[in-house]
Amino acid sequence: MKASHLQHKFEQVRTNKVFELFVIAVILFSALLVGAKTYDMPSTVNQVTNVLDWLISAFFLIEITIRFLGEKNKIDFFKSFWNWFDTLIVLVSLLPLENSDTALIARLVRVFRVLRMISIIPELRILLVSLMKALPQLGYVMLLMFIIFYIYAAIGSTLFEDINPKLWGDITISLLTLFRVMTFEDWTDVMYETMEVYPLSWFFYLSFIFFTAFAFLNMVIGIVVNVMEEENAKAYREAHKDEPTINDIAAHLKRLEQKIDDMQRKE
Amino acid sequence: MKASHLQHKFEQVRTNKVFELFVIAVILFSALLVGAKTYDMPSTVNQVTNVLDWLISAFFLIEITIRFLGEKNKIDFFKSFWNWFDTLIVLVSLLPLENSDTALIARLVRVFRVLRMISIIPELRILLVSLMKALPQLGYVMLLMFIIFYIYAAIGSTLFEDINPKLWGDITISLLTLFRVMTFEDWTDVMYETMEVYPLSWFFYLSFIFFTAFAFLNMVIGIVVNVMEEENAKAYREAHKDEPTINDIAAHLKRLEQKIDDMQRKE
Amino acid sequence: MKASHLQHKFEQVRTNKVFELFVIAVILFSALLVGAKTYDMPSTVNQVTNVLDWLISAFFLIEITIRFLGEKNKIDFFKSFWNWFDTLIVLVSLLPLENSDTALIARLVRVFRVLRMISIIPELRILLVSLMKALPQLGYVMLLMFIIFYIYAAIGSTLFEDINPKLWGDITISLLTLFRVMTFEDWTDVMYETMEVYPLSWFFYLSFIFFTAFAFLNMVIGIVVNVMEEENAKAYREAHKDEPTINDIAAHLKRLEQKIDDMQRKE
Amino acid sequence: MKASHLQHKFEQVRTNKVFELFVIAVILFSALLVGAKTYDMPSTVNQVTNVLDWLISAFFLIEITIRFLGEKNKIDFFKSFWNWFDTLIVLVSLLPLENSDTALIARLVRVFRVLRMISIIPELRILLVSLMKALPQLGYVMLLMFIIFYIYAAIGSTLFEDINPKLWGDITISLLTLFRVMTFEDWTDVMYETMEVYPLSWFFYLSFIFFTAFAFLNMVIGIVVNVMEEENAKAYREAHKDEPTINDIAAHLKRLEQKIDDMQRKE
Repeated sequence: MKASHLQHKFEQVRTNKVFELFVIAVILFSALLVGAKTYDMPSTVNQVTNVLDWLISAFFLIEITIRFLGEKNKIDFFKSFWNWFDTLIVLVSLLPLENSDTALIARLVRVFRVLRMISIIPELRILLVSLMKALPQLGYVMLLMFIIFYIYAAIGSTLFEDINPKLWGDITISLLTLFRVMTFEDWTDVMYETMEVYPLSWFFYLSFIFFTAFAFLNMVIGIVVNVMEEENAKAYREAHKDEPTINDIAAHLKRLEQKIDDMQRKE
Repeated sequence: MKASHLQHKFEQVRTNKVFELFVIAVILFSALLVGAKTYDMPSTVNQVTNVLDWLISAFFLIEITIRFLGEKNKIDFFKSFWNWFDTLIVLVSLLPLENSDTALIARLVRVFRVLRMISIIPELRILLVSLMKALPQLGYVMLLMFIIFYIYAAIGSTLFEDINPKLWGDITISLLTLFRVMTFEDWTDVMYETMEVYPLSWFFYLSFIFFTAFAFLNMVIGIVVNVMEEENAKAYREAHKDEPTINDIAAHLKRLEQKIDDMQRKE
Repeated sequence: MKASHLQHKFEQVRTNKVFELFVIAVILFSALLVGAKTYDMPSTVNQVTNVLDWLISAFFLIEITIRFLGEKNKIDFFKSFWNWFDTLIVLVSLLPLENSDTALIARLVRVFRVLRMISIIPELRILLVSLMKALPQLGYVMLLMFIIFYIYAAIGSTLFEDINPKLWGDITISLLTLFRVMTFEDWTDVMYETMEVYPLSWFFYLSFIFFTAFAFLNMVIGIVVNVMEEENAKAYREAHKDEPTINDIAAHLKRLEQKIDDMQRKE
Repeated sequence: MKASHLQHKFEQVRTNKVFELFVIAVILFSALLVGAKTYDMPSTVNQVTNVLDWLISAFFLIEITIRFLGEKNKIDFFKSFWNWFDTLIVLVSLLPLENSDTALIARLVRVFRVLRMISIIPELRILLVSLMKALPQLGYVMLLMFIIFYIYAAIGSTLFEDINPKLWGDITISLLTLFRVMTFEDWTDVMYETMEVYPLSWFFYLSFIFFTAFAFLNMVIGIVVNVMEEENAKAYREAHKDEPTINDIAAHLKRLEQKIDDMQRKE
């Protein structure tokens, strides 16, 4: 009975509005701390930030524990992706990485504590989930785009390798160079260089830009159409949920006809 | 009775079409004056422009006073955002800042008089208000985007600080550098520099571009869908306002059925 | 009677499919000639192209004359914008500009003969007219954008003139520099330069990019929504033109009700 | 009878799921091989890749043969575009090009074997066909855009040839330079250069950017509207296929009215 009493108390804490705001404040503070550490600071301040770091880690550990203990059915806790996400971030930042070799990694790991902002604000969580849902629909367009990239990269590193190995040395570097061309980033420098050896290589770049721009455009339109359709369907259902459908009208008419027929038969 | 008479007269002036066009002309002229002053001119011309500046300020003061006095209920004047806006711009440009130290500030302050163009043309005012309305809807996407920026900036200034402190010195500079990368502005220069130390750092840039482009795309689609829906809803209501709804048809049918039932019962 | 006979004959020529294709061929050939002249060629070829140029001009003159004489009512000829357009292009290219001073202008004038491609192909004419129709709808957004540009240019040339007069010398140059910033063309070079004097000037650029990008986005969405609406309205009218409207259904029901009422009254 | 038996067996192989997955695996492996060859490798590895190349070619030949023999009606095989596509790719990569002169061409030809990925995955095939279908709709906008490009290129190479023959030497180079300006790639460098001779040449670039951006925007909107309309029409038909139309309702009402009229006449 006592355990259940404690669980109930923890649940109260967890769902408390003040507690939630305090957690958001600590996450915000930890984000500011991450930012502050990128400035050059005297060593005394550094020691203070280290202590604060440990306090934040401790607080996060306690918070997760409260969330876990506040759950009625302990297994439910592990059913939520976001609980796993939070627990992982907190546990990783607890690893003892304070010796000089791994200090950099320790700092990087703490940066990801900012991501807890997403798990704590429901609107951001919904937004991220909806973004993720849009990804698989784009699967085939992205595969097609990768095939285009791959073929052009293979041709590029075969023909242009000797011209500039830094840009066309192997297929990985060529893929990076082609991504650069797609973003229009100094792409003419790349082109003018190869045009001196192969004067017709402008066709390589222009056709590549055309294909990728076209595929990209289709990808964007694909998402837009999808989002629109869902929104329209939702809006339609919302607007017409209390209204009789045209099927109801037709059924009603049939019923009327039946009655008139009955009247005629009687007479 | 005399005050009321004056108020009426001022209201007539305020709503006079010629007066309005004259105000627009003066604002246009003050905009041209602002532009003219950016050219090097002989000091005599400079003195003329200074005099003109004071005349414009005086005219604007008179105009605002007329608007204020022309209001029946003086408190209504302060209920409009645009009146506050106009009064502030006019009052600020009246501050005596003509000594050499603050001459620059005085010139900058007068630039904002061009903004009165927005408050005087109703269509621009509506446009600006509708633009502002679109902003809060984007709130959460922009917060998500800022979190992405912040995490990448923290990682960037941790890893790349020693490579180029001008680009990755602290988190503020890193945020600016990442904005540059998002606009594709010489982003490969930034990347090639860090790739010499961390050969895999291309992943940092490509994932950043992917995340921000994706979030930005969603932001744009969000606005488009929103605007479309509103327009569609408005168009639908407009087109069908005089038409009976399907509910009316259903009610009508029920009424008919009732009458037929009555007839049957009578027989 | 003879004049009318001639007019009829010219009208037959004008509407002849072979004649039309021949005109298109001549326009295409004149376009190729314009392109060919940009290459360095021996003077004998140059003389040939000059002769061809005169032949094309002569042909165009004859063609326009046929079009004019083929018109039943001569005044109708001047009612079409495209006739004015064609006549102007042909007449201008007939001006005697062959002396060395004005040879350049003569060459430029002939370039515009390529524009006759638009007036001769109906689909291009429709396309251009529909593009032009979209312009005025954007009027106020473009005015708003110009006000933003103007204010930023005035501030820029006031603050940054001494830093780089080539970019910020006066308001015209500043407007050009800001357009460059809007296209993201080496905008960080412009920014880093002014940030050395005013470290906070990044705010000037970022706010400018934000405002113009936002205004531009709205402009684009404005066109999209407009085009969509027109298309939808057209499609709706097309799809439902033979169908009874919900109003017809309601009227029909009322008629039925009337008849049932009549029956009841009779009984 | 025996031939028919063999054909049936081949058809079974062809439609076998395991066989299909194996073909995809071989295509993937050939793609990886193409990528691997862009790295510098010891000659022993090179010999291995050459052998693997021949094995892949042999496998593809056998696969195509099976597909051909598995077809009941041999002529049907040549009716599919994708069979022609596959056969061509396989046959071309079988050409004996192994001597040193043509080794480069042989390598390039094998790159296109990656394209078989499109013909083997039905979703990619559908995607590509639908992309191709969107092209002709854009025909006239692209023609208009080319006319704009051509006129500006002719003017550019007439006026700016002496300033920088590398950018404006003849009409072909000028077209390439204008494409560069359209992608905003260091376009101000091009402009500043010509502005030193013709100070007003900024108008040339700005008007060009305006026209092409506007035409491009219309092209994109054209596709979006088209795709949307098709999707909407499809969705509408899908949603309402089992529902009575408003025409059915009107017909039903007319039938009812007829019956009521009959009743009235009888009485």
